Amino acid sequence: MTGMIARPQTPENAAAAPPPLRARRLGLHAQHEVLVLMRVDCHVCRSEGLGAHAQVILAAGGREIVATLYQVSGDFLAADEAGLSEAAWERLGVAEGEPITARHADPVGSLSHVRSRVYGHRLEEGGLRAILTDIVAGRYSDVQIAAFVTACSMLALDEAETVALTRAMVDTGESLTWPERPIVDKHSVGGLPGNRTTPIIVAIVAAHGLTMPKTSSRAITSPAGTADTMETLAPINLGIEDIRRVVREESGCIVWGGAVSLSPADDILIRVERALDLDAEGQLVASVLSKKVAAGSSHLVLDIPVGPTAKVRSPEAARALSDRLLAVAGAFGLRTRIILSDGTAPVGRGIGPALEARDVLAVLQNAPDAPDDLRRRACTLAGALLELGGRAAEGDGARLAEATIADGRAWRKFQRICEAQGGMRVPPVAGHRRALPAGRSGVVVELNNRKLAKLAKLAGAPDDKAAGIEMHVRRGTAVRTGDPLCTVHAETRAELDYAFEYAAANRDCIVIAEP
Amino acid sequence: MTGMIARPQTPENAAAAPPPLRARRLGLHAQHEVLVLMRVDCHVCRSEGLGAHAQVILAAGGREIVATLYQVSGDFLAADEAGLSEAAWERLGVAEGEPITARHADPVGSLSHVRSRVYGHRLEEGGLRAILTDIVAGRYSDVQIAAFVTACSMLALDEAETVALTRAMVDTGESLTWPERPIVDKHSVGGLPGNRTTPIIVAIVAAHGLTMPKTSSRAITSPAGTADTMETLAPINLGIEDIRRVVREESGCIVWGGAVSLSPADDILIRVERALDLDAEGQLVASVLSKKVAAGSSHLVLDIPVGPTAKVRSPEAARALSDRLLAVAGAFGLRTRIILSDGTAPVGRGIGPALEARDVLAVLQNAPDAPDDLRRRACTLAGALLELGGRAAEGDGARLAEATIADGRAWRKFQRICEAQGGMRVPPVAGHRRALPAGRSGVVVELNNRKLAKLAKLAGAPDDKAAGIEMHVRRGTAVRTGDPLCTVHAETRAELDYAFEYAAANRDCIVIAEP
Repeated sequence: MTGMIARPQTPENAAAAPPPLRARRLGLHAQHEVLVLMRVDCHVCRSEGLGAHAQVILAAGGREIVATLYQVSGDFLAADEAGLSEAAWERLGVAEGEPITARHADPVGSLSHVRSRVYGHRLEEGGLRAILTDIVAGRYSDVQIAAFVTACSMLALDEAETVALTRAMVDTGESLTWPERPIVDKHSVGGLPGNRTTPIIVAIVAAHGLTMPKTSSRAITSPAGTADTMETLAPINLGIEDIRRVVREESGCIVWGGAVSLSPADDILIRVERALDLDAEGQLVASVLSKKVAAGSSHLVLDIPVGPTAKVRSPEAARALSDRLLAVAGAFGLRTRIILSDGTAPVGRGIGPALEARDVLAVLQNAPDAPDDLRRRACTLAGALLELGGRAAEGDGARLAEATIADGRAWRKFQRICEAQGGMRVPPVAGHRRALPAGRSGVVVELNNRKLAKLAKLAGAPDDKAAGIEMHVRRGTAVRTGDPLCTVHAETRAELDYAFEYAAANRDCIVIAEP
Repeated sequence: MTGMIARPQTPENAAAAPPPLRARRLGLHAQHEVLVLMRVDCHVCRSEGLGAHAQVILAAGGREIVATLYQVSGDFLAADEAGLSEAAWERLGVAEGEPITARHADPVGSLSHVRSRVYGHRLEEGGLRAILTDIVAGRYSDVQIAAFVTACSMLALDEAETVALTRAMVDTGESLTWPERPIVDKHSVGGLPGNRTTPIIVAIVAAHGLTMPKTSSRAITSPAGTADTMETLAPINLGIEDIRRVVREESGCIVWGGAVSLSPADDILIRVERALDLDAEGQLVASVLSKKVAAGSSHLVLDIPVGPTAKVRSPEAARALSDRLLAVAGAFGLRTRIILSDGTAPVGRGIGPALEARDVLAVLQNAPDAPDDLRRRACTLAGALLELGGRAAEGDGARLAEATIADGRAWRKFQRICEAQGGMRVPPVAGHRRALPAGRSGVVVELNNRKLAKLAKLAGAPDDKAAGIEMHVRRGTAVRTGDPLCTVHAETRAELDYAFEYAAANRDCIVIAEP
């Protein structure tokens, strides 16, 4: 199981193990970091020769985890206590005061594969599997994960490596199986702010009885992932049993993939890729497809927005990515259709979890001011799934999808899915809002996806769900000096200031020219 | 200055800054990590929108540092306290209870250069300087440093990049200048356990009045660096003024380079390279030469041991490395001589800081059982320096060096240097020792440098100064089953056990064959 290590306790090392420490929950929030704090002068550190930053194996109640040791000479920890960070507390599953033993972690053998990759050699499936197994078990430090990610970005993964990485990602996590078939799924390759079609698509295809158990991810480098947005509308942290129930009842769900440990290695790698702002093709393909394979999908529609400031910048790059996606998907028997879409500007009005959720609701509710581009994109993709899944004739899917929104079936299905997931919520509204005025009169000629995404992130998205940008213009909108181009939403005054400082220094977020 | 950031406090962000927190020294030992702990519910985290792992700028008494934020929901920290790790406490230089302000760190601009390198583009001096400036200021996380190090290992630095990296390393640290000339220096490219010639060489050349202000490094991936070994004989953490005094009085010193901030970027990169067990040629050259340039050296002898389990494994690799070293040294006006030496087996008897110090003492004291190989290697290199520095005729240096040991001048000079550095010490002896017996009778035919180094590290070297290996055999020694091949020294029973487990699994550490 994730985070646990099978290591037989031999009589020798059992004899050498020092007496246990008492577990203490420190309430230390260090994100994913599995940390243990011990006193410099505690008997374990002395007898095991442990120093700060040592990797140690903590054992309690039959469970074992790998943790990084920090040492304390101050008095906020007793000499017989092992203080745990929140991630360590959760993974080890101990109770306050329970005995914990600690010992040196074994050297991590799979690092030789990482070094081999750094020195330019390609990896076989065995090597990749060994690396991911150790990463999922928590045996790699962030520095070591960063080296692996960088090595796979610099010398791009080839097709065989990408298939092997995908398979290793699937195999080191849990997998879902479903009694019915087809199991449909969709994914958009990011980079396009506001492109939040998934909740709409699930509602449409589930309304037609197609099974779509959608597991989504949180943002990697963007201001919102589908999971971040959906979380403002309903609970998304569902376990496997709850997911099965929702899908059985409503044919579809929109949940966070991380909660069910599908491809947990991917989540760990993504965290590091995010810190580095790296998002290489091979990892992207393995990331997307490992989640789909582990989720038990059989039919897949992939949306690739193409534009100069989207993730995929040119038709050539889109073709290369499509080829790789189709080849790897084929290796896993996934029937896949790829749709290249316009990626030259943000979709809808909102950028940021709650603001995008508002757009989703407007489309589903058939509101008169619903963003038309978001509706059309969702219907194109939903239509492709309806065709792939045998619910519409070839060429007729999009029209059926539009009708499913127009007659309220999609909105009713969406509400039922939210209720089944734990109850529908109203997206939050940010406490601080300020309009960004046009610096000149003219016509909006260009919207920079990357810079607008950056602006939304500086305002606090995706961690602050209500933060982000509300666009008031699109390409072609005529504006006069002082007209609001967009409104920045933030939870704190300081973040609003950061965002405006950035906007002042980056006027080409929204380019206005002579009409 | 190192660790400080000039950032004008504009009226705007001054107005937005929340009231300060009170500094608290936690006694939290996290190696180099500059950490600040704040309560989740403190006013700073709330008003600034700070989350766990955010990079923040801490300011106190006119100084600013970058720190990583961890959050605390427990009660060991008060809501108005900022708890600092030891590294943070030292860098910020605050007193208990002093007011500290905290705000979001600015985005790190130079990361775009790192990403560009990951995507295969070469870096100009400006890019490398920007990266190193940010690294030295503490603006990079370990993940980001690891990406930089990996990128420079995978696509090897070319000559122009190596020169630029060297220059940037020099320029982002302090530099020493000396009134006299020549300033001689030496370096051995590691990989050969026990090759501890430096203290002997400094004593010899300083006895002849040559100026040799030696700054040494700690181990990167080896069981001992010269600084680690020398620390068991005398204080090595000298500031610039003390170094100047010692050199003025005795012509030479052997101190830790890190204490004087010569090429501080190198020390940071080395720490990450060590965690990754990476040691690529370009960084190696920049690391070696940046220290020499910053130390003000004018004449340099470089020792490159060559052998199948040394760092440099073949004559071809040695030639390539020599060429790069000479080219980059030439760009800085360093007169350099390179000596390729036998790298097929460990040098001397000891492997580990204190055990190697014993060998150094034996050679300097002209003891009858002094390891002959260590003496000869030291005299070859010291001889080259005596020739380069004009104290011996060409071809006559090694003989003069031998004579300087034989007549006791080198030993007297070494003692005076140790006294000037703060007083001579006796190397410690480990509390746990156990002999490794020969598994069969025969002749020792091979010693594996890498595996013996690994064995010494598992025993606790270099962090435990007394830990390591004492060799009882060399190549060609005849042994009978049960004869001691070496003795492992450790500070704890557990480490002794780890080392023996490794030795049992790696019989080819010391290969015995039919005579």
